[in-house]
Amino acid sequence: MRDVAIIGVGYTKFGEMWGRSFRDIMIEAGLEAITDAGIEGREIDAMYVGNMSGGRFIAQEHVSALIADYSGFARDFHIPATRVEAACASGGLAVREAYINVASGLHDIVVAAGVEKMTDIGTEMTADVLASASDREWEGFSGATFPGLYALIANYHMHRYGTTREDLAEVSVKNHNNGSLNPKAQFRNRISIETVLNSPLVADPLRLYDCSPITDGAAAVILAPAEVAKKYTDTPVYIKASAQASDTIALHDRRDIATLDATVFASKRAYKQAGIKPTDVDVAEVHDCFTIAEIVAYEDLGFCRKGEGGMLIREGVTAIDGDIPVNPSGGLKACGHPVGATGVKQVAEVVLQLRGDAGKRQVDGAEIGLTHNVGGTGATAVVHILSR
Amino acid sequence: MRDVAIIGVGYTKFGEMWGRSFRDIMIEAGLEAITDAGIEGREIDAMYVGNMSGGRFIAQEHVSALIADYSGFARDFHIPATRVEAACASGGLAVREAYINVASGLHDIVVAAGVEKMTDIGTEMTADVLASASDREWEGFSGATFPGLYALIANYHMHRYGTTREDLAEVSVKNHNNGSLNPKAQFRNRISIETVLNSPLVADPLRLYDCSPITDGAAAVILAPAEVAKKYTDTPVYIKASAQASDTIALHDRRDIATLDATVFASKRAYKQAGIKPTDVDVAEVHDCFTIAEIVAYEDLGFCRKGEGGMLIREGVTAIDGDIPVNPSGGLKACGHPVGATGVKQVAEVVLQLRGDAGKRQVDGAEIGLTHNVGGTGATAVVHILSR
Repeated sequence: MRDVAIIGVGYTKFGEMWGRSFRDIMIEAGLEAITDAGIEGREIDAMYVGNMSGGRFIAQEHVSALIADYSGFARDFHIPATRVEAACASGGLAVREAYINVASGLHDIVVAAGVEKMTDIGTEMTADVLASASDREWEGFSGATFPGLYALIANYHMHRYGTTREDLAEVSVKNHNNGSLNPKAQFRNRISIETVLNSPLVADPLRLYDCSPITDGAAAVILAPAEVAKKYTDTPVYIKASAQASDTIALHDRRDIATLDATVFASKRAYKQAGIKPTDVDVAEVHDCFTIAEIVAYEDLGFCRKGEGGMLIREGVTAIDGDIPVNPSGGLKACGHPVGATGVKQVAEVVLQLRGDAGKRQVDGAEIGLTHNVGGTGATAVVHILSR
Repeated sequence: MRDVAIIGVGYTKFGEMWGRSFRDIMIEAGLEAITDAGIEGREIDAMYVGNMSGGRFIAQEHVSALIADYSGFARDFHIPATRVEAACASGGLAVREAYINVASGLHDIVVAAGVEKMTDIGTEMTADVLASASDREWEGFSGATFPGLYALIANYHMHRYGTTREDLAEVSVKNHNNGSLNPKAQFRNRISIETVLNSPLVADPLRLYDCSPITDGAAAVILAPAEVAKKYTDTPVYIKASAQASDTIALHDRRDIATLDATVFASKRAYKQAGIKPTDVDVAEVHDCFTIAEIVAYEDLGFCRKGEGGMLIREGVTAIDGDIPVNPSGGLKACGHPVGATGVKQVAEVVLQLRGDAGKRQVDGAEIGLTHNVGGTGATAVVHILSR
């Protein structure tokens, strides 16, 4: 297996883009990444696309071919173009498959893209589409929505470890603060603890400001063999590890509902491949689909011991100027969560951080970065470790 | 890249399985493949699942995690499990991704699975789900169904090359004849030319018997490094080539609507990788979603020159005892077409042929086999070449 580098990244502004189509936003992100890499379209050997539910959001499956076509790569070069899906972890898997392609020597230049257009259908149906990431027969059909499932995790975590309602709110406050520094974030408003605590209850104890939003957006990163990366860019970022793990899809089948074992296994595999410890991570983009998810991620990624996630946010360890800055982009909460795009955007964001190109949200001197992308309540987790 | 072998295969009976669920049929096919390979679950390193539209057919995305879970591989081993999708080519892509994983050295034992449960929703909606494989904005929303799109191909082929209505019917007669020999086929009734010609018109010139049916079914194949394959089986079948290509998703954008360039490019790449010529192929399972698709496939795969596909079926060249037997399983037309499963079942079927285990539909002395799986009207094509 060859070493692999990322030579170009791009992502659209995230938000509700009523006037733009799925194909428009995907092409915008792809062009930004291609321009960033300074490559020409004909150099691209293959493409992977992360997308959760084009079938239901825009009545379109086969989106890999659609995007290859609208990029001009289908008719001109007939490149392989493959969609991968594992709910909200679809983007992370696109990066992983692209990585495997390049690492194997099969292809040289491979695009990993992610896209979701979520606002073209009504909100009620959106909740049901998202419920298709859970075990439909045991969870979705019984009325369990994603806020409901994560509320179970939150309640148990609070009961068992003493995590407080305020700890959850602090995650949202931090990520909104970070989002205010990111011109591409969906929400750029700074908020207070009270904003969260006084927001409408969604699924006790989770309130509106504990939940990531419904978002349109697309992201793309371009991978190349490490040995030629310097030909394209002065600042390649290397993929030191790519790991993926699964767990039961239904929450009730887990050994512990407050632990995402898929995150535990994926991150352990990633740390081993990269030869680093969790404390070596300088910046991380983690899957904060709900505030509780970020606290649980701290623990399952090994940033602290089990049950201490609340303390980490309380003590500012994960703030942008803390020891392990988490979600400087604003995370899913404030930057937004176009589900299939999120895992790719996380990688794009960490690349910007490691290059020193993250503008006002730049983490000082970041050399090693981690991305953590979760499908559903954790039946799939994908972890990447990147370095300068 | 290492050489790769297939050490186990399985597929369910294809048909309308009202009393069985998506997860039931997938587990049945997987168990059959595992039993066939003589491996234990804990030996499996990763899984790829081809599925076109779980989101719309059964309101379930994230099916890779679901299947890993119900196989016991998620909770016990936390294996990577990834869904791939390119409409009706999803199964072929699952085999291809599994192949890349093993060839790269990343994993040793990898399952490629494919599944579709199509009969749990009404027929009218099924046509619309299938239309999501086309360019929704230019084709589906304008009312172009798949029979309609393939009818355009058929009309042009008949006009340009003199292919006759009877040639199309002969494909259906051949595949029904083959299906009658396959205990797992959806349709086991032999038919005559008149059956096809007198069947209801669907989209002129295509009639009911020109169209593959709506089918439930699942298939699985198990891949291993070639160097250890003999440890598991006396009859490994080797993957000599795996190739994939894309084309414009909308038919009207093609240079020639009677040619599937994705098939042309994928098969050329595959022949090159395998170091063989089209005439070296002893048995093929090709994508006969409509009778015209099989005739066009003959040409685009290089079994004959462009325009001569009608002659091939007329002269019996592709009959089970012909020079290049095509679709001895009954093909999509008679064996059935559970869209995400089809590409995997094609590979499973060719493995049975090359082993000499294909029962009454056995092709004498087959040593080299080819599979050809198409997404939509040919925006994606996947070709595998297998050998004893």
